This record gives sequence, structure tokens and C-alpha cells, in this order.
Amino acid sequence: MRTGLWLIGARGSVATTVAAGAAAVRAGLGAPLGCVTTLDDFQGVPLPRFDELVCGGHDISDIDLVKRAEQLVTAGVLPAGLPGLVEDDLRAVDARIRRGTSGERDSRPGEVIDSLAADLADFRKRNNLDSVVVMNVSSTEGPAAPHPAHASLTALRRSLYEEPHAREQAPVLPSSSLYAFAAFTAGCPYIDFTPSAGARLPALAELAHERGMPWAGSDGKTGETLVKSVLAPMFARRALRVRGWSGTNLLGGGDGATLDAEGPVNSKASSKAVVLPSILGYPVDGGVHIHNVPALGEWKTAWDHIVFEGFLGTRMSMQFTWQGCDSALAAPLVLDLARLMATAQRARRTGPVPELAFFFKDPVGSHEHSLERQFTTLVTWARGLRVGS
Amino acid sequence: MRTGLWLIGARGSVATTVAAGAAAVRAGLGAPLGCVTTLDDFQGVPLPRFDELVCGGHDISDIDLVKRAEQLVTAGVLPAGLPGLVEDDLRAVDARIRRGTSGERDSRPGEVIDSLAADLADFRKRNNLDSVVVMNVSSTEGPAAPHPAHASLTALRRSLYEEPHAREQAPVLPSSSLYAFAAFTAGCPYIDFTPSAGARLPALAELAHERGMPWAGSDGKTGETLVKSVLAPMFARRALRVRGWSGTNLLGGGDGATLDAEGPVNSKASSKAVVLPSILGYPVDGGVHIHNVPALGEWKTAWDHIVFEGFLGTRMSMQFTWQGCDSALAAPLVLDLARLMATAQRARRTGPVPELAFFFKDPVGSHEHSLERQFTTLVTWARGLRVGS
Amino acid sequence: MRTGLWLIGARGSVATTVAAGAAAVRAGLGAPLGCVTTLDDFQGVPLPRFDELVCGGHDISDIDLVKRAEQLVTAGVLPAGLPGLVEDDLRAVDARIRRGTSGERDSRPGEVIDSLAADLADFRKRNNLDSVVVMNVSSTEGPAAPHPAHASLTALRRSLYEEPHAREQAPVLPSSSLYAFAAFTAGCPYIDFTPSAGARLPALAELAHERGMPWAGSDGKTGETLVKSVLAPMFARRALRVRGWSGTNLLGGGDGATLDAEGPVNSKASSKAVVLPSILGYPVDGGVHIHNVPALGEWKTAWDHIVFEGFLGTRMSMQFTWQGCDSALAAPLVLDLARLMATAQRARRTGPVPELAFFFKDPVGSHEHSLERQFTTLVTWARGLRVGS
Amino acid sequence: MRTGLWLIGARGSVATTVAAGAAAVRAGLGAPLGCVTTLDDFQGVPLPRFDELVCGGHDISDIDLVKRAEQLVTAGVLPAGLPGLVEDDLRAVDARIRRGTSGERDSRPGEVIDSLAADLADFRKRNNLDSVVVMNVSSTEGPAAPHPAHASLTALRRSLYEEPHAREQAPVLPSSSLYAFAAFTAGCPYIDFTPSAGARLPALAELAHERGMPWAGSDGKTGETLVKSVLAPMFARRALRVRGWSGTNLLGGGDGATLDAEGPVNSKASSKAVVLPSILGYPVDGGVHIHNVPALGEWKTAWDHIVFEGFLGTRMSMQFTWQGCDSALAAPLVLDLARLMATAQRARRTGPVPELAFFFKDPVGSHEHSLERQFTTLVTWARGLRVGS
Repeated sequence: MRTGLWLIGARGSVATTVAAGAAAVRAGLGAPLGCVTTLDDFQGVPLPRFDELVCGGHDISDIDLVKRAEQLVTAGVLPAGLPGLVEDDLRAVDARIRRGTSGERDSRPGEVIDSLAADLADFRKRNNLDSVVVMNVSSTEGPAAPHPAHASLTALRRSLYEEPHAREQAPVLPSSSLYAFAAFTAGCPYIDFTPSAGARLPALAELAHERGMPWAGSDGKTGETLVKSVLAPMFARRALRVRGWSGTNLLGGGDGATLDAEGPVNSKASSKAVVLPSILGYPVDGGVHIHNVPALGEWKTAWDHIVFEGFLGTRMSMQFTWQGCDSALAAPLVLDLARLMATAQRARRTGPVPELAFFFKDPVGSHEHSLERQFTTLVTWARGLRVGS
Repeated sequence: MRTGLWLIGARGSVATTVAAGAAAVRAGLGAPLGCVTTLDDFQGVPLPRFDELVCGGHDISDIDLVKRAEQLVTAGVLPAGLPGLVEDDLRAVDARIRRGTSGERDSRPGEVIDSLAADLADFRKRNNLDSVVVMNVSSTEGPAAPHPAHASLTALRRSLYEEPHAREQAPVLPSSSLYAFAAFTAGCPYIDFTPSAGARLPALAELAHERGMPWAGSDGKTGETLVKSVLAPMFARRALRVRGWSGTNLLGGGDGATLDAEGPVNSKASSKAVVLPSILGYPVDGGVHIHNVPALGEWKTAWDHIVFEGFLGTRMSMQFTWQGCDSALAAPLVLDLARLMATAQRARRTGPVPELAFFFKDPVGSHEHSLERQFTTLVTWARGLRVGS
Repeated sequence: MRTGLWLIGARGSVATTVAAGAAAVRAGLGAPLGCVTTLDDFQGVPLPRFDELVCGGHDISDIDLVKRAEQLVTAGVLPAGLPGLVEDDLRAVDARIRRGTSGERDSRPGEVIDSLAADLADFRKRNNLDSVVVMNVSSTEGPAAPHPAHASLTALRRSLYEEPHAREQAPVLPSSSLYAFAAFTAGCPYIDFTPSAGARLPALAELAHERGMPWAGSDGKTGETLVKSVLAPMFARRALRVRGWSGTNLLGGGDGATLDAEGPVNSKASSKAVVLPSILGYPVDGGVHIHNVPALGEWKTAWDHIVFEGFLGTRMSMQFTWQGCDSALAAPLVLDLARLMATAQRARRTGPVPELAFFFKDPVGSHEHSLERQFTTLVTWARGLRVGS
Repeated sequence: MRTGLWLIGARGSVATTVAAGAAAVRAGLGAPLGCVTTLDDFQGVPLPRFDELVCGGHDISDIDLVKRAEQLVTAGVLPAGLPGLVEDDLRAVDARIRRGTSGERDSRPGEVIDSLAADLADFRKRNNLDSVVVMNVSSTEGPAAPHPAHASLTALRRSLYEEPHAREQAPVLPSSSLYAFAAFTAGCPYIDFTPSAGARLPALAELAHERGMPWAGSDGKTGETLVKSVLAPMFARRALRVRGWSGTNLLGGGDGATLDAEGPVNSKASSKAVVLPSILGYPVDGGVHIHNVPALGEWKTAWDHIVFEGFLGTRMSMQFTWQGCDSALAAPLVLDLARLMATAQRARRTGPVPELAFFFKDPVGSHEHSLERQFTTLVTWARGLRVGS
């Protein structure tokens, strides 16, 4: 079961950690901690092995992957010495990375899509892959501008392939959706690990359906929201009334700069904001705030403050601080998703996969945000995947 | 379904909050927040109503219950003004409190038990109660000294009722177990909300079986351990390896003084210590520490620091601070347990009730410590209770 | 030395706490904790005694002061029972409160000032006061719109008293500055406990000089910034390089709503932002954020996260959480400032008083933000005040 | 001014960081952040330059210094790549390390001292050093057993050099004091960066006086206590009454294991415990607790929880978490102390040096614990040092 993992943003921190980490795991140099699919619960599920995964991807940067890996050592993401030990693997991945689209206004979006899809087909063929999973791990986009062509595949195709696009117009599709279009076109499942639009437009859902492709997202649940997804059920189960829940996220790196700007914060903060009312069933004071602190580099600190009422309304409070390395938290989930989605495709699953809600802040097709119930759903689903011979 | 709730430690902070709170709820003066049995999940379970609960109990203190309630207002546990509004109810409960045993060495423990049991029978008769649930909410005892008579009911009866007891000897049973013996003797279910021995001795389990009584415990899960019971599963579900988990509990009030002394801390800390390895399946550095800070009064602050490893061993950390009022957290659970246990008795459940694990740090008959799974078990069990007409 | 304390915002939480607290201290019902002038260092400084202070003030609300005090009991600011014990005093203060100006555009600002000044003169006369200190403890205003008349007293007088003011124009002076103008006119020192403009306009400084009045401000240092003013010097003294310092302030009450809106946050956040670079001497990543959480009521929680570098650039971090009640922190400082300023006036101090920097986030006439050095300066200055007979 | 820095515990984490760091600073590879003597305040004080410092020391371990440095890279203390860049320097220091005394019972302690002193003389001569400062940075000892010979130098000399010592007897002097005796004998100032006894015995103070040597200590102030030394004065200056202050220190590495055992914790906790009552002037609930968490490695996390009262007794609280790397915090202070003490010796200062209190948790000869005042004292003293030509 040779499986391709095609990463949008292939030279970014998450993708580099995925590439270096998968190589390290294959070589027995590190443990796949954080890989949920290694738990006993997944025993017997016909997943591709780690040594059957082949990484490639699109990026608009040219920086060498070995150099990126060394930067991640300095940043405390990868262990000292690792890049040297897996240098050959990194160079091989590097050679499989193709120039992506930067989302700038293009007069022929259809051609861009075709070119991206051709890259995918080429990747599959050259590496003799049974399937290729496309996953977006690039920077978060701002909320996509609404466009009438999003409503149906016919309209969208016409707009992308037939109508002229003036450079000064807003693009019909944001980059993440161009990639999703290309993925489905090339017969690849698509997963959005960011809160970007990706496949979450009616026209793209239609395309996935037409091609029989499964897809999932959005926004990997790696830190503050992960904790929320177990703490909020705790308050609910104990009939304690949450009155305020304020979250502050301090981010460095490119992510901090991107998310502190207006647009992306909005999409990020809104994917974070659905969790609480969904679990608790009532609105709560507070909100989620994201601030850029370049000095934090690749690390992230979240502080959440919760005010709740106990018996007769007595006010109490709880706080937590989460100090995590986003790439080290995201990378194993990316590998999990690739393994699960490749198997889902072989099992002929199509359309959105709500059973993968466990991995996401804002899961497609699901309103379940309690981690424990998401886990039960995930395991049941994975165990039920039957793969033809 | 008039149901008695007999509290050991009936003038303590928890019991006073229970009495004042139950009265407030009955009178519509406050919401039964924190009462799990009010959740929709328990709809249809034939539980006694709040206005069918009658409180009484044993205590060795003489302090007036209204005065205690006023102290709890000053301490921020009860709302200002409440004691005045429910004064009649508090005086009624006060009149039902009987002198308990202080656990001092007594030459005739059998007679002590018989007298305690007579108090229970009298309480039931005077108040025309269908059932009486006995619950221990008194101070935590030190670990019980082992005694050969604990091994069988025959041996225990002989020792308690027939053998002479020199005052300088260690007592055969600690107070909590004398109360459990009396409860079963009087046909009452027994619940230990503290980590004391209570009914957890083979001879007492035998007695419960002989009398057909259900029983449960130990050590109400109200704060730090409650949070652990959702956070530890989160790390497990995500395959993140916890390397260190250190808990510090700052307590004031009588509880702080009791638990910072040698014996009780040990029993408390050990009931807290079973949770992590049970959920995670491997040992973790750290430990649980309890420190007395009188200035905190009735409030409790817990700080937990967790070190864990992500992908390739990257070290990350999480901290939480819990600032709670123990009595306001415990009281609604005491009411829940009384309602559930009365129904269990009517449904002819006997012996330990592991399905109540949701409420306890160290549940009898259960090794399940994940809150979410405990909740599922609890609801399924409660819904299955069939009460004869 | 009968001394008047005239509070702008006399029915607000701070002012009510000042009035109730001063009465409680006079009656021996509570300790003046937080009153810096009670420290031994101020022994011998000829300050008015607590029982020589008489409170009055302006407000635009009509709510009864006893009612406000009871609200503050419920909110956990004042001890249960206090309002009843000091009811007579509160009623007396209540009777001395006059209708203030709400800052709405007024066609005759000069008349408003004259009327405010007349209130002050009346207060002094009726209560036979040696001096009256005016202090602004009302809600924070947005940043004052610049106006050419701010540049000189002559221009300002002409604009206020002679020129017609169209209602649709921005007002020449914000409310806080109208009060400052009135105070100086009536021969009263003026202190701004908020970050509002107050006397910080060249024309008003000129007026203070002309009338020989001392004045001070701005923005009482009661929480997060107080802690900063000792932690930042710690890092500086130890030659540790601070790379990021992010502050999040969660506020409830009216204050939260006011400061989370655009304008006032800006003035508050900017008065908070001057501290760090001033102490450290270099810019730092991060910033100060204010979020409204109504559930917090009169309480405030601040969380600060600091990243710093030690030897060879090793990154370390520190966090603190401050959970305070703003009114209980501000009220004693208001009493201190009234006592000190009355004495300063008697000692014929005029103009801005930088020696009071100890009390303020953004002290007039001072760039010193280290608390310890501010304290030394304050004590030296206070001890040097010579009051004629 | 070639100056020797002789470290007791020369292969430990602090000493290795000192050696590697001093080399890095000399070579321009890293900034001497955390070195207080680089602040402008010390301009003009005739301190030895960094490139005039020569390191050597005693240790009982044989592990290679380059290897230790590499371990410290893995542990996140030293920057990746540094050991290779300063390998020659590390090898040179390595060659200057002599076998120390492990403090095991020895029948001839006088001979041990003479041998240690001979090592010092040899170090000075071979490296052509103007002065040699001896500093103890080894593991913390348990509290020294009292012995009558500690009372006077005559008695101590007799006991060490003339009386037979049975191996089963407790030793007359703990290791740290043997080193101090050797230092003074060899004409070297002695500084104790640990809470061990060192020179703090009357007989040793007498010896320092006899030889005209300055000495200082104890217990470098690098984390929790450093923060306390600015926060406690803050509460004092603001007349806020601290009611509880509880500190929890989580340590890994060798230090955690040493301090969590009975003896050393006691000496550490007691050196930490003097700070608060000394600054505040009254006793406070709480205490300082040290727990071993091996997973923390070379890093340390301290959590302090403070309850205090504001106006009229309103209870408020503050918490802080300090996440530091002890060696990266200690090393620059070790360099500072070496520079300052060498200059003090040249300026003919003898006896305890209370002016160095700034550096220590439990300063010899000083009861001043406020960091700001300690700093003022330090700078004044350093500027006054006159060195003869």
C-alpha cells in the first residue's frame, strides 16, 4: 500500500516536521508519539505502514528542506542532530516539491488547477503510489470572499475555465480551494488542516461527490481547543454552569504574524469559537484572542480563564496554560490523517468524513466537539473500514 | 418517596451546605447547580424529589447549625442572607442531629454501634421515611490499623460484641466503619464521601451482603482529581506521553489542618494517586502534595504541572490552577448520591455499586477513572433501575 | 485640618468604597489596609487624620449610595453587613453629591465650569473645610480630540467663555478637563486617577500655575502595572533580556465594557504601555490587551507572560496571574492621595507633582516607573513638606 | 589582572556552563546576558576582564567536560553547536580539574585540607594568576552536624590536625567547610553559591580574619526567591497584608533528587524561608516545598501562590510561575562574583561581605532581602573599591 502524502505548504514548519519525523520513525530514530493510529484501539485496521508513506508537495518558497529542518532544531522543534541523520530522505522529499500557487490574482485559474492536478498525477506515477492524500498545512487564509459561482459545480467550472478574470478582481477561489479542486480532479482525497475554505464550498463538495473522493477538515485541534474539548464536557457532565471562558493565544513564527492580522484571526478565532456553545448548549462570556509574539518562535502559549458557578451560584474559577510546539503536535496527526484517509479511499468512502472530527476544531459534517465521544466514533469507524483486495 | 439523608459530620461545612442548600432549592431561592441528577440524561429515573429529602445526622460538635451557616456566608460559601431565609429548615435539621462517636477507644464498641443504629431507626420512624441513606462527610481519618477481625463478619462480631477492649489498645474499627456497621444493621445504604475505611473491609462487605444493602465510595471527586479524570484521557487519546504530573493542593479550614498532618494526607494522597497510572497505563514522575494554608479558609487552590512528550520526544508542558470552594462542589454531589442510592435500594441493588464511580476519586469495585466513560456507565445504570410498586 | 475629598464619579464603585471604607475606618470597623500613608515611613508628616476627611462629589447617576454599597457587598468588594453599620455616614455623603456634567456637547462650556466650581465652593463653605482635593475616579474617557485652544490659557478661556459652540462640533474640552478647570478655578488641587486628559493640557497646566494649585495623575496603578513596576526592574537589575511581555486583562463591571470599546482601551492601554520600555530601555514584543468579561463583576484577572533570555541567550519564561478587586485596591490610594495633596497644598506646592509617581501608571512630570525608587522619592518628598501655622 | 576561578563541583552543570560560557563570551560567540557587572552602573569599577578569567576546580566525578557540555546542549542549557566551537577551552579547563574530597569520613581531615590547599597554590602558580577565587557550586549538603570544635579556630585546628578520627564518627567538618578552610589557608577568597555550611562557622570566620580573606554566600538567588525579593517589597510598600505565600519548586536533574531527600531540602528550604518575614515584618502562612520531577531535567518550575488583604480585609490573590534553567541563571552570577571578589581582595576587604547580598538567598552579614536596596548597596560598594597599584 504505497501511499503518497502531498502537503500544501511543503516547506513550512509542519510539513518539514512531518517529513523529518516520518523518516526518523522509519529509521527507528524516534518514536511516533502523538500518532493516534498507533494506539491499540486501531489494531487490525488496514492502514498503510509508516514506511509505505511517501511525502511530496507544493510550496511557493524555495528554501532547502534540510536548511528548514536545521532551523527547526534551533527552534527546539526537532532533536539536535536529526537533520543530518535523515538528510537523504529530506533531499528526496525536496526533489518532489513543486512550485505551488500563491493565490495572487490569476487570469486563468482553470489552467492553474490543471497544472496542480498534473503535479499530483506525476507524483503518483513516478513514485508508483496506490493513492495520494492531499493535505493543506500552509498558512491560514483570510475568510474567502463569497462568489455566486461557489453555489454549484457547473457555475464554478464555467467561471474558472471560461470566463475572463481581470487581475483587479477578487479571485473566484482562494488558494486552498484551488488545491482542493485539483486534488479531486486528480482523484485524490483532500484534507484541510487549516481553517481555510478548502473544500468547504457547495461546488467543491459536488466535485468530490462526482469524483467519489472523501474529504475532511478543518483546522487541526492541537492545543487550546483540544483542552477545551475535554474540559467543557467536564463542566457539562457535572452540571456546573460556565459563565465566562476567555482564551488568549500567544504565537510566534509566521503563524503569529498571519493570525494577528485581521482576516485570518477571524477565520481561526471563529473555528475556535464553535466548540464551547456546541458542548455547553448556552452562550458564555469571553472569547478567543490571538496575539503575535515573535520571540516565541515556533512555540505557542495559550492561557484560558474560566469562571463557573457551583451550588447556589457560588463563583469559582479555573485557569490553564498550554505551552506547546505546534509542529510537534500537528505532525503526528497529519500522518494519522494520511493513513486513515488512504484507507477510507480504498474502502470507497466518499464525501465529507465527519468521523474524523476527533482531529479538528471545526469538523466538516459534525457538531460533536467532545473529544471522548469523537474518539469512540473514530475508532468504531476505522474498525469498520473494509478494504477490497 | 420520603427519603432520609443521614450525614456523619452533620455540623461540618459540607453537611451545613447540604442542609441550607436543599432548603434553598426547595424554597426556590437557589438553583441546584452541580446536581448531576438534574441533567436531562436522568429524565425518567424514579428519583426522590428534592422536597422529599429529609436531613439529619451524627456529629460530635454542638455548634448551632444556623451559626455554622452564617460562618459559611462570611467564608463566601453561601450567599449573603441565605441563613435567615432558611432558618426554620436549619433549626429542624439541627433538632435531628444526634451525638456521634468520636472514635476514641471505647471498651464496648458493640454498644456504640447499637446506639448509632438506634438513632437511625428513630430518625426513620419519627420522620416517616421510606428509606434512609447514610453518608460520611466528616473529617478524613488516618489509614485504619489492620486487625485480624476485619477479615470476616463472624470474627468482627465476636471482637466487637464479645471480647473485652482495653482502652490502651488500638480500636478494632475506626469511626467510619462503626458508622457503616450501624448503617447496614439499621437497613440503610452507606456511602463514604471521604477516603476513610468506611465499609471497605471484607467483614463489612459481608455484612452489607447479609443485609442486602448497597454501598459506595470513596472520596468525592470535586476538584483537582476531577480535572485529572478528563485531562489524563486526553493525553492518552492523543498518544502523547506524560512524563511528569505534579499536583499541589493548598487547603485552609479544618480540612487543610487535617490533611497536612501525617496520617490523613496519606489516605487522601493515595486515593488521589490511583487515577493517573490507571488511565495512562504507565507510571509518571511527580506526585500529589497537600499543604495547609489557613488563610484560604473554606477555599482550595490546586496547581498541577504536567510535562509531556510529543512527536519525536519534544517536551511540552501544561499547567492548571483550580480555585474552588469544596463545600459548594461537594454538596450537590451529596444530594445526587442520596437520590441515586435511595432508588438503588428500592431497586434491590446490593453490595458495592461501581456504577457510581463518576462521583469518587477511588471508586469501590471499579478501575475506570475516565470521567466520560464513568458518566456513560452511570446514566445507563440509573436508567435501568426498576423500582417495584 | 478638615479636608474635603471631592470625587468625580461619586456614585461609582471606587468612590462608594472610599466613602464606606473611610466611615468604617473612622468607626474602627475595618483596617485601612492598602493605605500607604499609614506606614511608619510617613510618621511625622503633617497629614489630615482619617476622621478629618469629608467626602462629596459629582456624578451623573442618581442611584442611592447605600444601595450601591449593598451591591458592592454582593460583589464581594465590601464586607457583609458594612453598609448597615455606616448607613448614616453614607447618607451624609449622598446628600453632598451634586449633578455633574456628562460631557455631552454643551453650547456654553464656560457656564458648566462655573457651575461646577460653585459646587466646590459651596462644599467647602458648608462643611467648613480648610482645603478641598478634587479627584477623578469616574469612567475612563476616550483620548481627547486635539483642539488649538489647548495650547494656551488665553485661547482656551476665549474658546470656552466667548465663542459659540455648535452642538454638532466636538467639545473643546472633555469632561475630565472641565472638572480640572473648575477645580483650579475654585482653588482646589486636582488629581486624575484615570487615564483621561484631566489637567494634562498646556492651557490647564497654565491655569494651575496661575492659581498656585498642585495637581497629579494619571491612572492609578492598582494591579498588572503595579506588578510590572517591580518585575521589570528585577529583569533589568539582573541583566536578563526581556524579549516578550504580553498582558491580558479580563475585566467585568462597567469598567470592562468601557475599556473593551475602542477609545478608552487606547488611552488605558497606552498609559499601561509606557512602563516597560521606560524601565528596560529597549522595545519588547507583546502588548497589553483588555477584554470585557461581564461575569467577573467587580473583579479583575490579569495574566502576564514574559519571555526572557539568560546566559548565552537561553530562553526562559515567567507568568503571573493577578486576581484583584479594583475598588478595594484603588480606594486606599485615593485616601492616601487626598491626604498627601491636601498637605502639599498647605505646603504651597504648585504645578505637577512628579513625586506622586508611586501611585500612577503614567505619572505627570516623571519618567520613573520603578516602584522602589518611586517609593523612596515619595517618602523623601512627603517628609520634606513644611506646613505653615 | 589574571584571575583564577576555582569551582568546587567543577564538572557539574553550573560549572560546565560557566566554563563553556566564559569561553563563548571571550570568543564573541555569545552575549554575557545575566552578568550584572556588565551593566552601566559598574562602569569604572576595576574588575578583571572576561578574558582574564581562568577556570579550574575540584570534582569527584571523572566525566569529560566536553561530554558534559554536550549533555547540556541536549538538555537545552547550552546552544546547539557550542561545545564544538569552544572545545579547546573546555579541554584546557578539564586539564586543570583536580580530584576533590567526597566528604566521606576520613581519619586525617587536616591532610585532606592541606592537599586541597596545595591544589590551589599549584593552580595559581602554573597559570600565573594574581588571585584565585574559590566558589562552591557543588550539590547542596545536608545541614552540618554541630561540633564543639566549630566554636573557635584553635579548637578546630586541634581537632582536624591532632586528634584521631574514627571512621564511624560524624566528620568534624562537612566538605564545603573543608574547602573553605583550604581556600583561606591558600590565601583565596571563598564564596558559597549553595546553602551548605561553607565558611559559616565561627572557627572559619576566625580563619578568614586571620588570613585577611573576604568571603561571601550563601545560596545563589536565581529563581523563585529572586522574584520574592521584589514582590514582597511591593506588598509592603503598598501596605497590603500578605496572609499566605506558598511556594512549590519542581526540580529535575541531580538537584531535584538531592533536595527532595530530607537533609538538603531542609537547608535549602530554610535559606528560602528567611526572605518573607524579613521583608514583611510578620509571619505568613504557607511555606516552601521542593519536589523532584526527573522529567524536568536541567529545568525548574516554581509556582507561588499569594493571598493578601486589601482595604477592609478584602481577600485577593496572585500567582506566578517561573520556568527557568538554573545553570543558565547561575553561571553569569558566578562570573560576576568572581570578578567582584577578586577586586575586593585586591582592595584588601576582609571578612564577610554583606554588600554581595544581592546575589544570595541567605546573605552572610545582612538582613536586607529587598532586591532593589541590595542593588543600590552593591553598586555603591563596588564603586568604592580602590585597588592599589
